[in-house]
Amino acid sequence: MTETRSEAASDDPLRELAEALRRFADERDWEQFHAPKNLAMALSVETAELLEHFQWLGEAESRRLAPETLAKVGEEMADVLLYLVRLSDQLGIDLVQAAKRKMALNAQKYPVERARGSSRKYTDL
Amino acid sequence: MTETRSEAASDDPLRELAEALRRFADERDWEQFHAPKNLAMALSVETAELLEHFQWLGEAESRRLAPETLAKVGEEMADVLLYLVRLSDQLGIDLVQAAKRKMALNAQKYPVERARGSSRKYTDL
Amino acid sequence: MTETRSEAASDDPLRELAEALRRFADERDWEQFHAPKNLAMALSVETAELLEHFQWLGEAESRRLAPETLAKVGEEMADVLLYLVRLSDQLGIDLVQAAKRKMALNAQKYPVERARGSSRKYTDL
Amino acid sequence: MTETRSEAASDDPLRELAEALRRFADERDWEQFHAPKNLAMALSVETAELLEHFQWLGEAESRRLAPETLAKVGEEMADVLLYLVRLSDQLGIDLVQAAKRKMALNAQKYPVERARGSSRKYTDL
Repeated sequence: MTETRSEAASDDPLRELAEALRRFADERDWEQFHAPKNLAMALSVETAELLEHFQWLGEAESRRLAPETLAKVGEEMADVLLYLVRLSDQLGIDLVQAAKRKMALNAQKYPVERARGSSRKYTDL
Repeated sequence: MTETRSEAASDDPLRELAEALRRFADERDWEQFHAPKNLAMALSVETAELLEHFQWLGEAESRRLAPETLAKVGEEMADVLLYLVRLSDQLGIDLVQAAKRKMALNAQKYPVERARGSSRKYTDL
Repeated sequence: MTETRSEAASDDPLRELAEALRRFADERDWEQFHAPKNLAMALSVETAELLEHFQWLGEAESRRLAPETLAKVGEEMADVLLYLVRLSDQLGIDLVQAAKRKMALNAQKYPVERARGSSRKYTDL
Repeated sequence: MTETRSEAASDDPLRELAEALRRFADERDWEQFHAPKNLAMALSVETAELLEHFQWLGEAESRRLAPETLAKVGEEMADVLLYLVRLSDQLGIDLVQAAKRKMALNAQKYPVERARGSSRKYTDL
């Protein structure tokens, strides 16, 4: 980012979402319910709602979803992201930095030459 | 964003992550395992690993995690984000746009005056 | 079981497990942690540990697990049952009766003639 | 079991459920969808539906559910048991035996004197 930019936050869509979610919760007096324990539960519930769309589909089918299903799946994924961002805001965790660090760790853990084509290695992730 | 920037993607950290994950999978020949069905499962598993850190904590305790726990929680959240981004890339879903749309829907669904201080409304999310 | 047996509980393996788990928790002073909220979380975590064994397997592969995997899967399923039984004991719910009631409801919801070979119906379960 | 009893299955409620579920699936031609991979997903989804009832409740509240909530919770727990039993039947796993074995292991892993009142140990379960 250039130094002349003052509203740095507006460049980071996750930070923007975090701030919008904070306002949303404040206005509704929901901060009291948003203990990290509860948000982690809500995140888990949303992930399962996403999973539900895939439970009886074959793997190949899951690669070519009907438009209607895709739209619903997108909504569930949005819910997952929103709770994940809300939780990160409550805990003071920078999600993108954490993800970049994790990717660097994964690159060490699964060197290309040993991991090629094997899900075994991946299972140990 | 400044107009002079040509590589617009580099402004969007989730798109950057999506591209890095795609390269990561390609290099390891893991595309074959990354059917949306399987990625939704992996996402669910990671969310549960996050949940595990909170299962025996009280709500108040979960608001003030020990630094060591916080670090582990951050790693699990990174895993959740990575699978979520990978899944969105496989499905062609723009996560941030989907999240913004969902927030607009939530604002209609939970009007401030009716939702104040009630978790009941939220439960119906 | 023969009529001369007075301790009817021993006929119901889930009730036996519930009693053993109650003793187990009492001896360790764990009752304080076993709020239904927490047990539901623990149940969710164990289910995900089960799910993890299947995430990169094809459906056909999942029908013929290697003996080592099968043994681990059996252990995770045991954990799921144990938390489910513990939760039912804390809430005073008779699991087997609840399951029989649900099966009767399902028989009405998915009449044979309409449900045959369609996962669509099942998805709505 | 006494040798004179012919309907041995009727003594074991989980085996009874397994047989009823097998008939239920056969009549609807659902065996094709019931790969262990898919059943593990469905089990996970049902567990999250159970979890949803608890996400905004305090721990103390979760110990005294309203009758209406308790009834819904009982239904979700029934679903969890049904998928768990169906999965065990598909994999040829004796759930009750597996649970008893696991309890014996847990007794070794968490000796009374060291585990008393500490959730730390339990967290490692």
